[in-house]
Amino acid sequence: MTSLVDRTSATTVLARCDALAVCSEHPEHLDRAHLTPALAAAHRLVEPWMAEAGLRTWRDQAGNLCGRVEGREPGLPALLLGSHLDTVPDAGRYDGMLGVLLAVAVVERLRDRWADLPFALEVVGFTDEEGSRFGSALMGSRALAGTWDDAWWDRRDADGVTLADAARAFGLDPALVGTAARRREDLVGYLEAHIEQGPHLEEADRSLGVVTTIAGAERFVVEVVGEARHAGGTPYARRRDALVGAAEVITFVERTARASGAIATVGRIDVEPGAVNVVPGRAVMTLDLRAATDAERDAMRATLLAGIEELCTARGLTVHVTSTHAAPATPCAPWLRDAVRAGVVATGDALPLELWSRAGHDGMAVAAVTDVAMLFVRCHDGISHHPDEAVREVDVAAALDAFTAAVLAVADDVAGRA
Amino acid sequence: MTSLVDRTSATTVLARCDALAVCSEHPEHLDRAHLTPALAAAHRLVEPWMAEAGLRTWRDQAGNLCGRVEGREPGLPALLLGSHLDTVPDAGRYDGMLGVLLAVAVVERLRDRWADLPFALEVVGFTDEEGSRFGSALMGSRALAGTWDDAWWDRRDADGVTLADAARAFGLDPALVGTAARRREDLVGYLEAHIEQGPHLEEADRSLGVVTTIAGAERFVVEVVGEARHAGGTPYARRRDALVGAAEVITFVERTARASGAIATVGRIDVEPGAVNVVPGRAVMTLDLRAATDAERDAMRATLLAGIEELCTARGLTVHVTSTHAAPATPCAPWLRDAVRAGVVATGDALPLELWSRAGHDGMAVAAVTDVAMLFVRCHDGISHHPDEAVREVDVAAALDAFTAAVLAVADDVAGRA
Repeated sequence: MTSLVDRTSATTVLARCDALAVCSEHPEHLDRAHLTPALAAAHRLVEPWMAEAGLRTWRDQAGNLCGRVEGREPGLPALLLGSHLDTVPDAGRYDGMLGVLLAVAVVERLRDRWADLPFALEVVGFTDEEGSRFGSALMGSRALAGTWDDAWWDRRDADGVTLADAARAFGLDPALVGTAARRREDLVGYLEAHIEQGPHLEEADRSLGVVTTIAGAERFVVEVVGEARHAGGTPYARRRDALVGAAEVITFVERTARASGAIATVGRIDVEPGAVNVVPGRAVMTLDLRAATDAERDAMRATLLAGIEELCTARGLTVHVTSTHAAPATPCAPWLRDAVRAGVVATGDALPLELWSRAGHDGMAVAAVTDVAMLFVRCHDGISHHPDEAVREVDVAAALDAFTAAVLAVADDVAGRA
Repeated sequence: MTSLVDRTSATTVLARCDALAVCSEHPEHLDRAHLTPALAAAHRLVEPWMAEAGLRTWRDQAGNLCGRVEGREPGLPALLLGSHLDTVPDAGRYDGMLGVLLAVAVVERLRDRWADLPFALEVVGFTDEEGSRFGSALMGSRALAGTWDDAWWDRRDADGVTLADAARAFGLDPALVGTAARRREDLVGYLEAHIEQGPHLEEADRSLGVVTTIAGAERFVVEVVGEARHAGGTPYARRRDALVGAAEVITFVERTARASGAIATVGRIDVEPGAVNVVPGRAVMTLDLRAATDAERDAMRATLLAGIEELCTARGLTVHVTSTHAAPATPCAPWLRDAVRAGVVATGDALPLELWSRAGHDGMAVAAVTDVAMLFVRCHDGISHHPDEAVREVDVAAALDAFTAAVLAVADDVAGRA
């Protein structure tokens, strides 16, 4: 299968990533949030590339950019290939976009096979995967999966613009968002290529990896309450210092998660009253928890919350833990995961690295309506959500080969079952 | 000496503390900052009480309220008795005021002894001990001690009013602030009574205590720098989490100071970027350090800073420590401390408790121009800088007796030396 290596296409994919990076709300760095003019500009750039690849294109009523080629007969269920076109503020140029442009190139590569495929091929460039404008996430893929929530229309961005008004300004009709939803029987599955956003492939010296599961994140606010007192006059035996309690919690969380294989992070802490000469009376911190499976995450949560309670009680502090977000893990469908593995094997990697995704992806939403699987591409130093995001052309070339081979493996599987 | 117990006077002192508490910038809680109308109101209330006690009164050009009675001949050097009349926001009614009103009562009690005294008696109600309006502290006592800094005139309060403008609005002439300075040869010493602002007297079941030293506070900003990364994608081995490093610093600081007898407090911490799903890249915290002597504080500082450096280095973090404030400890003059001890012994406490002041006091500034000593009065549960500040009438009565006896002990000492 090494004959499939096509360096020109990898070069093109990377050149397109560069071109897309100019579609930004900010003159000096990449910032392309949901329903912004920058997203519209990205659509104007990508839509002709999709059309050149032979895809019939449209924009759905959620703001996703879509394209389709028919298989061996018109109207077959579709294998979706895609990722997202929105970015975080001050973003890199590969998170999301690389997966969309790889999908376009894969469809074009397979042009002489379309008539044999037992499914249609569709490319989706999702919007709002990052959710950086409306405090949401995955709104584009949720619309496609039919799990849209009309309550979202009233969300406002930092300028006070509602989602409904932003949608109208973008040329969408909020009343028609339901038309973006796909029926299960019209879909074969969903494949996404994405940069790893972590260092595991680089450490293992692999270009590509097979994703086993997309971890759901669970988030909490942990409030530790003690008593604010004069820092001079209050001896240690009389102190109920909320910050020292919180500090014990923070080191306990790291020590415990580190030993387990799960990931737990305290990203923020606020202390009251926050004066140099006052013993802190209250500390409020966030806790982000991820694990490969929901069972592991549940076990880690139980261990952490019991330990936090014990640490605080021992110091005469009270602790309140509030859950603010919970998304279950999304296992990749074994048969699609096998197809992705076959694609990676086709590049010459006989024993592909399997790994779980610590970050969230559109597949978490799409899984509500069809099977999903993912291919990870090595990125430099695990850096993402940062302008320094970088990939190697040789890895992008391998991803093109693997992604193409994976689609053919899905075709073999579907044809064999028929 | 128990005949000196005069409950009426303690009742009066407490009633005056209650009356003074209505002089506030805030309708519902006590807030009386430097050069405010509330401070002017307090002066209008206290000045007649000083005059009734026989004191000739004036307000100096720094905003201190002063009064004087002559001793056995006019123009003798003065023994200063006093404390401060300004407060923190949301203050209690005894921190400062109790010492001023005790001083007024002591002068009145000694009326029939004035003609025998080998010194004049003066009462000072200092301003700006707390420094809550202009980010300063001890401006009143520094003016009296001759350590005024003209750079202070440009300081602004939260409304942008300069100290110079505030002084003019209060009826003071900034050009004349130097006239508030006293000459060393015109002073015998300074005695101050103050609530303890800590729980040591209550724990020892004592009404009064003899202060050995006023601890100087030393303050630092500790900045821990790591690297902000995605909380999902970054495994522990790749993290340089500034908050976990800061948390280790916070628990280390408490553990080390607690074991030593010094007091170290981290009162504030700010984390960047401070997002739930990002490993913190930077943490900035304050460190407040106090000990009974400068030597103990220097040793504790060296131990803490070396340990902080070691902890951070072990985690691949860099740490920057900046000194933001340093005031040396002020030992009470042994001969004046002996007089205070004699005063407490006169109340029937044969072996008075000696303790160091963890909080700062006007004596720290006054010590630049004359010897100082302090008498501590028990307060409830060590609470101060809070509306729940409370004293017992029996302790105030004891303080009146002890303070009066201490002045007579000073008189004996001065007369004996002459």
